Amino acid sequence: MSILCNMSDFESDPYIDDLLATYNRAKGQAQFYLLKRIPEMKAMQRLSGDIMELMFPGRSGDCPENCTLGTVVRRELQEIGSILQEQIMIAYNYDKPDEDEATHKAKATEDVIALCKAFPTIRRMLKLDASAGFDGDPAAGSVREVILSYPFMKAITIYRMAHALYVRKVPLIPRMLTELAHAETGIDINPGAQIGQSFFIDHGTGVVIGETAIIGDHVKMYQGVTLGALSFPKDACGMLIRGTKRHPTIQDNVTIYSHATILGDITIGENAVIGAGVWIKNDVPPDTMVMLDPPKIIYRDLSKRKEADCLPRLS
Amino acid sequence: MSILCNMSDFESDPYIDDLLATYNRAKGQAQFYLLKRIPEMKAMQRLSGDIMELMFPGRSGDCPENCTLGTVVRRELQEIGSILQEQIMIAYNYDKPDEDEATHKAKATEDVIALCKAFPTIRRMLKLDASAGFDGDPAAGSVREVILSYPFMKAITIYRMAHALYVRKVPLIPRMLTELAHAETGIDINPGAQIGQSFFIDHGTGVVIGETAIIGDHVKMYQGVTLGALSFPKDACGMLIRGTKRHPTIQDNVTIYSHATILGDITIGENAVIGAGVWIKNDVPPDTMVMLDPPKIIYRDLSKRKEADCLPRLS
Amino acid sequence: MSILCNMSDFESDPYIDDLLATYNRAKGQAQFYLLKRIPEMKAMQRLSGDIMELMFPGRSGDCPENCTLGTVVRRELQEIGSILQEQIMIAYNYDKPDEDEATHKAKATEDVIALCKAFPTIRRMLKLDASAGFDGDPAAGSVREVILSYPFMKAITIYRMAHALYVRKVPLIPRMLTELAHAETGIDINPGAQIGQSFFIDHGTGVVIGETAIIGDHVKMYQGVTLGALSFPKDACGMLIRGTKRHPTIQDNVTIYSHATILGDITIGENAVIGAGVWIKNDVPPDTMVMLDPPKIIYRDLSKRKEADCLPRLS
Repeated sequence: MSILCNMSDFESDPYIDDLLATYNRAKGQAQFYLLKRIPEMKAMQRLSGDIMELMFPGRSGDCPENCTLGTVVRRELQEIGSILQEQIMIAYNYDKPDEDEATHKAKATEDVIALCKAFPTIRRMLKLDASAGFDGDPAAGSVREVILSYPFMKAITIYRMAHALYVRKVPLIPRMLTELAHAETGIDINPGAQIGQSFFIDHGTGVVIGETAIIGDHVKMYQGVTLGALSFPKDACGMLIRGTKRHPTIQDNVTIYSHATILGDITIGENAVIGAGVWIKNDVPPDTMVMLDPPKIIYRDLSKRKEADCLPRLS
Repeated sequence: MSILCNMSDFESDPYIDDLLATYNRAKGQAQFYLLKRIPEMKAMQRLSGDIMELMFPGRSGDCPENCTLGTVVRRELQEIGSILQEQIMIAYNYDKPDEDEATHKAKATEDVIALCKAFPTIRRMLKLDASAGFDGDPAAGSVREVILSYPFMKAITIYRMAHALYVRKVPLIPRMLTELAHAETGIDINPGAQIGQSFFIDHGTGVVIGETAIIGDHVKMYQGVTLGALSFPKDACGMLIRGTKRHPTIQDNVTIYSHATILGDITIGENAVIGAGVWIKNDVPPDTMVMLDPPKIIYRDLSKRKEADCLPRLS
Repeated sequence: MSILCNMSDFESDPYIDDLLATYNRAKGQAQFYLLKRIPEMKAMQRLSGDIMELMFPGRSGDCPENCTLGTVVRRELQEIGSILQEQIMIAYNYDKPDEDEATHKAKATEDVIALCKAFPTIRRMLKLDASAGFDGDPAAGSVREVILSYPFMKAITIYRMAHALYVRKVPLIPRMLTELAHAETGIDINPGAQIGQSFFIDHGTGVVIGETAIIGDHVKMYQGVTLGALSFPKDACGMLIRGTKRHPTIQDNVTIYSHATILGDITIGENAVIGAGVWIKNDVPPDTMVMLDPPKIIYRDLSKRKEADCLPRLS
């Protein structure tokens, strides 16, 4: 990129002092700059690629012609374990600076081992998720097309790994992982959510699944669905109380159509169907359909507006 | 990134057998791991960059100072042709393993040639799309700003290329291309959709256009619009029937405002206007406006909540 | 990637002439290809990384172990200044080819200096935005988690920088910057919008904030919210009139829940609460809540559909 080679003559010195003054510790606030070693988004990106390849070996195309399943699985396990052990140590070191490094390392190692023991279960669930995608979308040509191209597959794979770390109370990293998946897929699943098997999100852009949501088996949802909180209780000083159950419980076999918004700690009963665009904050009984009234149709003569059109112009 | 250099001491061996057991062929299921050569998302990313540069030479800034239009067009055509020929062969090889390699190569070559013959038409349509963007958005400073920065331009360019491969029944690749555009733009256009000229999507995030949707000329839509299916017919065994027309037909000069959801094989007549947030599953006659009723306004004294506020704190 | 090494035998020559013919200047249209030097998305990506690091030093993890705050701030200021000075010159050169290069350079230098002088204010605002994120979301573990992982932080940081260039009428670059943030976060803030302090967008996917929107202090919004225009006035020839105020004004302490759509040059009074999915095009008084009616519930026996289910299959 030749443009960036011949750097300009800009001199930053005159502007630096005012800016430096904004990094102070005034008013008892914690230091706001992050020069201490912190978990890195770049490491999360490597983890994201590695977990996809571990769960679906060969998907990346990075495998040499004669590599075996064992080679790939071993390589990815090793890579995930190493990166994660280091990043988790850094996260503990940030979160609990009073504990010593040996404690952080021991805890990080335990976390990684627990995750490795969870991988077989995670993979079995992801196989069911991929099948649910094929079975739930007439536009899918094959399960492999789902695995190769559906954004949902990346979001659910990274979520299932991040959730395994969330339940062990690993700081920072679970959310960094799911926000990475959010950026790539438009699907925002908080790592704290609990999601059953054979889950499928079609299209997915704009889906939000909150931290304390619970989702049963064989649930299907579409783009723009929100499982959100209705209001946040505050303590006497007005600060948010964190950690209470504030998101919906979705029972087995529920289908939620696009842009439906389900708010609060309510229960959507099994086999229910929630229509597109519905906004709901009360329980829905099992085997029930919830729909919007059809919109009002206004007849208006719009034929005049064509006269005002000009030819398209290129500039 | 120094953090990743000093790899940790994690040892993956103890955890590998249980995981390997999840890749078996039990219960007649096809093998789930993908160590066979498959079309690669990385190749799709290169194609995506190349098609943008072929259609809008110079857009990438990768062009040396004295390169000519002919140089750029020739280079990009050559690159697209080579990558695509190879990837399509791999896709056929995956999809129809019983056919021999010579057949796959002959078909892949035909597909690439057909695409090259379609490029002039695709470019003429993209010029009209870019103009429609400028003519449809008062915030656009110039057609070039639209081409350089609007997510819609990437989505429609990649869609128009993917559609040309879809109609030739190339497996896997059309959907991989449009899902790549989906990830980058939030606009999910199935490669099977048919889209006329002078099309424009403003903002775009969350738009879903289904596989059998048909869109006329001079159609404009906004973020969050869904052209979806209402229900999926199943065969006697309960499996989805694929390929039937199940998405809307949008006639010429229709405008669809943000988050409108249009479901099923219905027709929106020419010049119709569909209001924001409308959910609709019946035909709309030409020259008709469809709107939501204004929402009910609830007056509630919210002035107390200010007392509970605390000063923002940094941690 | 071995697949891409052995390029195929595709020959582009036969297809080049028809395509070259589509780049002509017919009908008085400006030349459509872009072989002139233009601002580059790649440079915007570098700027995007640099501004995040300048505002939150250490966030990227690219800092060697013993680097100081002064080193990082100086390096990023220098980098941002150099890249931006060059890109702005290119933009002026494109936009006003009749002016000479010295004029472009002088103006670009002034723009960069103005931005550098604005950085301390921008950083103070971003600190308040990050705190607003922590105070507004019970799922946030710490302010640092917000800074490290919330897509909103990237969107608002890049917007605040782009807005400083927009008010100086720098062409092309402000929108390229915010569209880059849009692609990464799903949050589409036009650089022309005016946004007060302690702003927070939770989740964010699908948010659209139009060019002439004005947002006060302590405003909170959720995914899918649109601050859009209702209709576009045209001149006598039918061309859009650009630049008029056409988007909402949102006063202090307003909360807007997910997928609400607020259209036109209206005012939402202070302390108002706009409910999820509400579509509104009239003023809302202060201290008012606007909500959708609860949806109609249809009871339908859905128990039969379970019989038709087949076991998930893998292919």
